[in-house]
Amino acid sequence: MSARLRVTVWNENVHEKKNPIVAKIYPKGMHRCIADALMIDQPVAGVDDAGPRSATAPTTLEVRTATLHDPEHGLTDKILEETDVLTWWGHVAHGEVADAIIDRVIKRIWQGMGFIALHSSHYSKIFKRLMGTSCSLTWREAGEKERLWACNPAHPIARGINRYFEIENSEMYGEPFAIPAPDEIVFISWFEGGDVFRSGCTWKRGNGKIFYFSPGHEMYPIFFNPSVQIVLRNAVRWAAPDPERWIDSCPQIPISEACEPLEQKGPRMHEEGEEGYR
Amino acid sequence: MSARLRVTVWNENVHEKKNPIVAKIYPKGMHRCIADALMIDQPVAGVDDAGPRSATAPTTLEVRTATLHDPEHGLTDKILEETDVLTWWGHVAHGEVADAIIDRVIKRIWQGMGFIALHSSHYSKIFKRLMGTSCSLTWREAGEKERLWACNPAHPIARGINRYFEIENSEMYGEPFAIPAPDEIVFISWFEGGDVFRSGCTWKRGNGKIFYFSPGHEMYPIFFNPSVQIVLRNAVRWAAPDPERWIDSCPQIPISEACEPLEQKGPRMHEEGEEGYR
Amino acid sequence: MSARLRVTVWNENVHEKKNPIVAKIYPKGMHRCIADALMIDQPVAGVDDAGPRSATAPTTLEVRTATLHDPEHGLTDKILEETDVLTWWGHVAHGEVADAIIDRVIKRIWQGMGFIALHSSHYSKIFKRLMGTSCSLTWREAGEKERLWACNPAHPIARGINRYFEIENSEMYGEPFAIPAPDEIVFISWFEGGDVFRSGCTWKRGNGKIFYFSPGHEMYPIFFNPSVQIVLRNAVRWAAPDPERWIDSCPQIPISEACEPLEQKGPRMHEEGEEGYR
Amino acid sequence: MSARLRVTVWNENVHEKKNPIVAKIYPKGMHRCIADALMIDQPVAGVDDAGPRSATAPTTLEVRTATLHDPEHGLTDKILEETDVLTWWGHVAHGEVADAIIDRVIKRIWQGMGFIALHSSHYSKIFKRLMGTSCSLTWREAGEKERLWACNPAHPIARGINRYFEIENSEMYGEPFAIPAPDEIVFISWFEGGDVFRSGCTWKRGNGKIFYFSPGHEMYPIFFNPSVQIVLRNAVRWAAPDPERWIDSCPQIPISEACEPLEQKGPRMHEEGEEGYR
Repeated sequence: MSARLRVTVWNENVHEKKNPIVAKIYPKGMHRCIADALMIDQPVAGVDDAGPRSATAPTTLEVRTATLHDPEHGLTDKILEETDVLTWWGHVAHGEVADAIIDRVIKRIWQGMGFIALHSSHYSKIFKRLMGTSCSLTWREAGEKERLWACNPAHPIARGINRYFEIENSEMYGEPFAIPAPDEIVFISWFEGGDVFRSGCTWKRGNGKIFYFSPGHEMYPIFFNPSVQIVLRNAVRWAAPDPERWIDSCPQIPISEACEPLEQKGPRMHEEGEEGYR
Repeated sequence: MSARLRVTVWNENVHEKKNPIVAKIYPKGMHRCIADALMIDQPVAGVDDAGPRSATAPTTLEVRTATLHDPEHGLTDKILEETDVLTWWGHVAHGEVADAIIDRVIKRIWQGMGFIALHSSHYSKIFKRLMGTSCSLTWREAGEKERLWACNPAHPIARGINRYFEIENSEMYGEPFAIPAPDEIVFISWFEGGDVFRSGCTWKRGNGKIFYFSPGHEMYPIFFNPSVQIVLRNAVRWAAPDPERWIDSCPQIPISEACEPLEQKGPRMHEEGEEGYR
Repeated sequence: MSARLRVTVWNENVHEKKNPIVAKIYPKGMHRCIADALMIDQPVAGVDDAGPRSATAPTTLEVRTATLHDPEHGLTDKILEETDVLTWWGHVAHGEVADAIIDRVIKRIWQGMGFIALHSSHYSKIFKRLMGTSCSLTWREAGEKERLWACNPAHPIARGINRYFEIENSEMYGEPFAIPAPDEIVFISWFEGGDVFRSGCTWKRGNGKIFYFSPGHEMYPIFFNPSVQIVLRNAVRWAAPDPERWIDSCPQIPISEACEPLEQKGPRMHEEGEEGYR
Repeated sequence: MSARLRVTVWNENVHEKKNPIVAKIYPKGMHRCIADALMIDQPVAGVDDAGPRSATAPTTLEVRTATLHDPEHGLTDKILEETDVLTWWGHVAHGEVADAIIDRVIKRIWQGMGFIALHSSHYSKIFKRLMGTSCSLTWREAGEKERLWACNPAHPIARGINRYFEIENSEMYGEPFAIPAPDEIVFISWFEGGDVFRSGCTWKRGNGKIFYFSPGHEMYPIFFNPSVQIVLRNAVRWAAPDPERWIDSCPQIPISEACEPLEQKGPRMHEEGEEGYR
């Protein structure tokens, strides 16, 4: 029995409708290109004659897409409930994403849903709220060459990448990148114009695994790059939640249910059974 | 020449006005008690006959207070500009703190202002935004004994604490505490009722050093506890900013200013000199 | 097709031969008890009617044991090559483990083999070398009650543990525990005598996932505790390597193989193709 | 009263005696060049009209040097006792550093002594033992240009560096660099030949602050580079210990000294007062 992994590919889908260059590159929208890339059969890596060596069995992907202009941005409770990993591409319309939806997505991430933030989503509301920093960077739109180095070639997100890969025409995203220290840095980019960038980084917030991946400028066909696609396929698998879901809350523990025998010893603000302030 | 450190002690100051028990414990408000504690001469630790061994010279503290009902909650641009470290106590009125002030405080933290979140401030808007998690915990208000263990007795925040200290009557805050993995855990608490809690934790966001310290329930005179006061005095010193302030932004780097010679090679979304989307 | 996971359970197996109390508790050695516990069918957690929700499929465990007095301590190149996760229990004979075997184990961990250090193995040569700290702690052998709290109930290592579990008679291991800040703290212990301890911690070194778990005092039947056994079963699954193995080295990159065209520009210490110093 | 900081600059000093190119660049040894650089008056940064804004007062440096061929490599108990920060440069003679001296240095680092590992010291015994990983990297000796980007321009180690600095002729050190995830990445390098490297990284082991800084190839006059010298001056200040020294041990806590009343409840391996096994 293979495991299955349900991915929702979210895209604001605005440039594709307004900018003829973007529309020509991604006639069905970037989300369609990403979804198609995810559904390509994952190259089987690290397998020897004795079969796969690890605890990870083959995974069947179920991929759907959602965009800004869908009802509830395509992110209803039901869809999020059935999403294991959410990928996100936003740029010009960060401010149009409703706060209620943002809250809903973030709660699902805390529960365990994986989250892949792509390119200009460094400035999405979700990513900024997960990081707690400004997430600023430097940038330059010259179509220069970008070379992404794997900092750990055996990291599951770098599987199938041999030391580095290149993007012939890319937007430069450069340091300083105002993020909290990542749990792991998977890729660092070298740019033709002389800059560097932490282009693949991981964090965990609650039970949600988070991966930021900087390639994906809308004016170049970057999501068609085969190495970018390998990374995307790896990343959604890496970000898969554990089966357990923990709905955290902030319960008052009754004195009678303390692990050790306990008597009320002083005055109290809250009655037994009351909720706390928020 | 001694260094100076400007601390602003913020308190919502609501319970003190409404609840007679709290009013009796803190007749001038909790902020006054904390401010007074900070201004006690710091016990000189780790000094031998040859004088202080480290690069840290004595520090002169300048302490002011601010509360919810002051204009702009007492946190004007000017006051924040002149604040090196901000301590925060909030509980029943988290929701009344204006978002514009929250934004202003968070920007100063990113610049380097230290931030000490006390007790129920685990649920303050500022702390939650810095963490990116729900910050939930479990709690019980039985007046039970709490013993705080130093996980590293030589940590600057634990200076003067010998292995542990006790709070005779405390509110239990217990695990699970929904925070990102701390940079360092300074204290872990043991509770009479059988629970444990990561009661002293550090993080960094931007250039701001952050310390969460869980003691401080309003119904008991916890901020008069001498060991709690030692920790507060240590914490504001630990959280002092470095002199450099970095105002991060998200600049477009002109192609002509690239470090390496570069030609425009493809189409572009933004004109030279334009700002990016947010 | 289910994945398989090959675990080697290592035990110094000295107390069992010399101390009649230990011998009576573990007549076949602690390793046998641990190996038997691992092979119990893993309770299926987090599954709903729609089947498992995550990318992790059922795992078939193959468990073998090895002890100090086996040839090469039972850790030949071939056995390590065929080991995905190694569990380790040592105490009185840390110094008798040959350095060459230690080096071999550590290299396999860097490649990706998981490593579970149990109880007094905080002072094993392997664990200390992986941590880079002294790994000291405080301890007391009073048979007191220990309660282990899950800091994140949805962590894969805490699956099946509901908030906490208890060990009726345990050795106290207490803070300060001289370790580098863990990547994640899975359990914190409360002790009847008033102490606390970070009793379940994770790190990564190279590609090897490391879990330290403090229960396991030889004088009490702790490895028969059902909750301890659940944690062990979870931990070996969590520590499973990714299929990819990276044999790191320190290669000189020939100038002719630089990504960008490059000319030799100055004097050099090493000839093209030479190895570096170590 | 200014604080004082006692730095010991260690250098294996072998290339300087054997290789005429190195001897010509560093006729008094690299250690002398580094020591001289440290003693240059620190540029006062981040000061406004109101005087220094932070808790850090001016520091008086006392710098001494030590080399491999000094008795006890110049690292006697007394000298280490009087050292606040140790800088280290080693390459061809890593294996000649006596293990007893290594142990002594590491114990002082755990107590709080700062440690700055330079260039090829990524492979020094001390650095590898502190990291717990292989510390391998890739390298190329072409005299190519290296540009070091500050990942956080306000980090105290980057003070005075404006976004980046360059080394005209450098040895390439490239990713993958097999280290544990750093606490902070201060610099990332861009290389003319197309590679990148995490060239300035921090960690903490015990109470010792550790900084790895990759520039310093012996065949080029890199330690004369003014920006490299600024970083060295910043780094020793950043690595200064807190005054408190904690000598960690592994004490048995007598049952009679437990915080909570406790009776012996089971058999025991160790008598009251005995030391544990190591």
